Amino acid sequence: MLTYDLSKKETLTIYEYLYQCIKRDILDGILHANDKLPSKREFAKHHQISLKTVENTYEQLLTEGYIYSEEKRGYFVMPLGNDHANRGSAHENHMPFSVYQGNLDNDHYFADFTSNQAAIDRFPFDTWAKIMRSVLSEKQSELLKTVSFQGIYELREAIAKYLYGFRGMQVSPDQIIIGAGTEYLYGRLIQLLGRDHVYAVEDPGYQKIMKIYQANAIPWEYVAVDENGMQIDKLYESKASVVHVSPGHHFPTGSIMPIARRRQLLEWAEQDRERYIIEDDYDSEFRFSRRPVPAIQSINHNHRVIYLNTFSKTLAPSIRISYMVLPRKLMERYVSTMNFYSCTVSAFEQYAMAEFMKKGYFERHIHRMKKYYKEKRDCLLNVLEESPLRDYVTIDEKDAGNHFLMKLRTSLSDTELKWFARENGIRLDCLSEYCVINKEAFAHTIIVNYSDLDEYNFRKALHILSDAVIL
Amino acid sequence: MLTYDLSKKETLTIYEYLYQCIKRDILDGILHANDKLPSKREFAKHHQISLKTVENTYEQLLTEGYIYSEEKRGYFVMPLGNDHANRGSAHENHMPFSVYQGNLDNDHYFADFTSNQAAIDRFPFDTWAKIMRSVLSEKQSELLKTVSFQGIYELREAIAKYLYGFRGMQVSPDQIIIGAGTEYLYGRLIQLLGRDHVYAVEDPGYQKIMKIYQANAIPWEYVAVDENGMQIDKLYESKASVVHVSPGHHFPTGSIMPIARRRQLLEWAEQDRERYIIEDDYDSEFRFSRRPVPAIQSINHNHRVIYLNTFSKTLAPSIRISYMVLPRKLMERYVSTMNFYSCTVSAFEQYAMAEFMKKGYFERHIHRMKKYYKEKRDCLLNVLEESPLRDYVTIDEKDAGNHFLMKLRTSLSDTELKWFARENGIRLDCLSEYCVINKEAFAHTIIVNYSDLDEYNFRKALHILSDAVIL
Repeated sequence: MLTYDLSKKETLTIYEYLYQCIKRDILDGILHANDKLPSKREFAKHHQISLKTVENTYEQLLTEGYIYSEEKRGYFVMPLGNDHANRGSAHENHMPFSVYQGNLDNDHYFADFTSNQAAIDRFPFDTWAKIMRSVLSEKQSELLKTVSFQGIYELREAIAKYLYGFRGMQVSPDQIIIGAGTEYLYGRLIQLLGRDHVYAVEDPGYQKIMKIYQANAIPWEYVAVDENGMQIDKLYESKASVVHVSPGHHFPTGSIMPIARRRQLLEWAEQDRERYIIEDDYDSEFRFSRRPVPAIQSINHNHRVIYLNTFSKTLAPSIRISYMVLPRKLMERYVSTMNFYSCTVSAFEQYAMAEFMKKGYFERHIHRMKKYYKEKRDCLLNVLEESPLRDYVTIDEKDAGNHFLMKLRTSLSDTELKWFARENGIRLDCLSEYCVINKEAFAHTIIVNYSDLDEYNFRKALHILSDAVIL
Repeated sequence: MLTYDLSKKETLTIYEYLYQCIKRDILDGILHANDKLPSKREFAKHHQISLKTVENTYEQLLTEGYIYSEEKRGYFVMPLGNDHANRGSAHENHMPFSVYQGNLDNDHYFADFTSNQAAIDRFPFDTWAKIMRSVLSEKQSELLKTVSFQGIYELREAIAKYLYGFRGMQVSPDQIIIGAGTEYLYGRLIQLLGRDHVYAVEDPGYQKIMKIYQANAIPWEYVAVDENGMQIDKLYESKASVVHVSPGHHFPTGSIMPIARRRQLLEWAEQDRERYIIEDDYDSEFRFSRRPVPAIQSINHNHRVIYLNTFSKTLAPSIRISYMVLPRKLMERYVSTMNFYSCTVSAFEQYAMAEFMKKGYFERHIHRMKKYYKEKRDCLLNVLEESPLRDYVTIDEKDAGNHFLMKLRTSLSDTELKWFARENGIRLDCLSEYCVINKEAFAHTIIVNYSDLDEYNFRKALHILSDAVIL
């Protein structure tokens, strides 16, 4: 039995200490690839500690990919590749919580298919800095006053204009609420709509949505997604009264909900006074060739649709400005029950963002980024065409966003594929990881986020992957 | 019966329309001071609209002070003073939601006793701007990367140092979570602690706390506060397992919880594994003569106390940076269940704040503000000493924060006092408004927030008030 001396934990908690011990043993090669770990119960009993502590420890190791679990069999050590033994264990000892920074493994990978952040190096920093400087000198007194709970009017006005021009939406600045990130706004919506709703979440889909409902102890259900988005018959079968969708560009399948399905969705919503559609339009800006699909909100603009979008995705992840457009009735409810909440975005960045939009920089930035992403995508697809993997691959969804799907003809399971990649310095996610109901239907498919991926490393990664795929 | 033609509401909702109609009739003097409004039920029936709509309308008018309610008697028009008839009604017509900005009435008052914001004109804007500019040019790449869910390390480190130096607290940067406002962090705490807790809220106290629990549909109870803070025997009588207190400077009574009471509070918390104290230390910086009282967190630093503080209060309301210090165990729980939440404060302001602290500007600012507030307070107390009201007034709590309490010897009820003030252009809140359980014990006491109040207007206000008080 794996035994650690808890008396040596010093100032660490048991959880931190065990986490570090096991991690170190994995990194140092004391625990070998595919070694089985003791069951959580045995381990807890053996060390006379609570089961919860062991669960937390295993969970953390699992999240970071040091171990993997197999149903009904238990936990096993993830094969990490020998060259990484001992890596970094020294400096981690005096930073017990450094694990929380989430960047422990970054050095391990030469190619990262998983980063879906805005391409940071393309951010128009000089323009942004110039605007910030001018805001600093011109808006002195406005900058220090309390901001309306909805956000500053100038920014809401700029957003309303943008939505009109680019998404065909007719909304008043008075329907807009600005917040520090869509995650924050989801939380507000839960409070606004009340806790009696069941939320439908897309499967496959963006896992954070589910986590937020879970953290808020709100009932939610997965509803299956096909190539046209959420399946409406399944939605009817669910208990849901609020549905969370990204009809403009589904993550991770990339599908766009066709108008017929949108109408069905609206029909579903109209059948009960308290049914709502949360339209998360997070990525709609980056559509390449086809015309942008109108937002559902624009079909049903004063009624059932709550529209959300963010600038974190289009500008930079560290800029925390998102917004939602509420139907009039919900806006009234917000005002009467929640206007005591202060706006969470500082006045300074709101004024800067308003200027950035008003002066046309935002539009120009989107335009440039679209061009950049399209070139990058075309380039990577060319690389794929030239690689030995080309005959084993089908590419899905070529028209939008900053990722595409690469479906492999292979007998490898997704877990095997992921391990192999990891062992060889490639970080990747499979579509099936974003899926619960019907994993098989989405198997053998790699999500290629390319904002952080260059031609050279992609070529190298494809060569390595072909060793595993082509037998 | 008051009748409005709903067919004229155009694009407005019924609620907006009725709100505007009644408000206009009050401002135009069509409805007179102390006129009784129709009962909500009659009004709804008469117009064939829902009771809820009328409730919302009355509630909004009540919140903004256009009407007042008397128990079992109904709703009445607030006396506003004749000179204000017709004010502003024209421009409001094409800005139907302008009411939400909450600044409708600002012009009406020559003296505002209610603003408890940081004194904006004292903000060291030049220094802040200089730091922001240097952050812009030096931190380019850091500024655009995703921030750790806890907030940037530099800022957490600066906060830990500050807390050590000024509050005697030994905390690691790893225990700190930065968020866009304490309201936001309260919400995170609800999710972290789980929904099975009942929260104890101070009465009298800061009403927003209760509203947040209410909006989150979390059970809460008022627990009575005396001159030493929350009454521990009442706390035991309650069902609460989490208690929300401001022991360093209670709002609005200004009381400081003495050490004995603090110990009792900790004892209460120790009696169950899942009892916690939320120590909201929002105003602790502005203590004038006495030594700062150590935070409860510093007595019990790794255990039961969740410490919260904000920079919005010390710097400027539009700077949305707050933080909480979690006990180790709760930090672990946060990491394992909630680290998917992105940090809500933009990297830019976090770096600026970190610099502002590291270079000693924050400390200097606090020092200057203390001096400023003390001088202002002394000056206003002098004005009071010279006023005819001096023999009718007892001043409470002279040592901290930016407000004091003025207890009047008067036969006027608090409602009468408030109306009189309002009619005469003085905005004031009475202590009893922050109180539910025992209003009488806190009656006849005006809260004087003086950050936005000058000598001249205070003198004028006292003269006016003495007309009502001295018979």
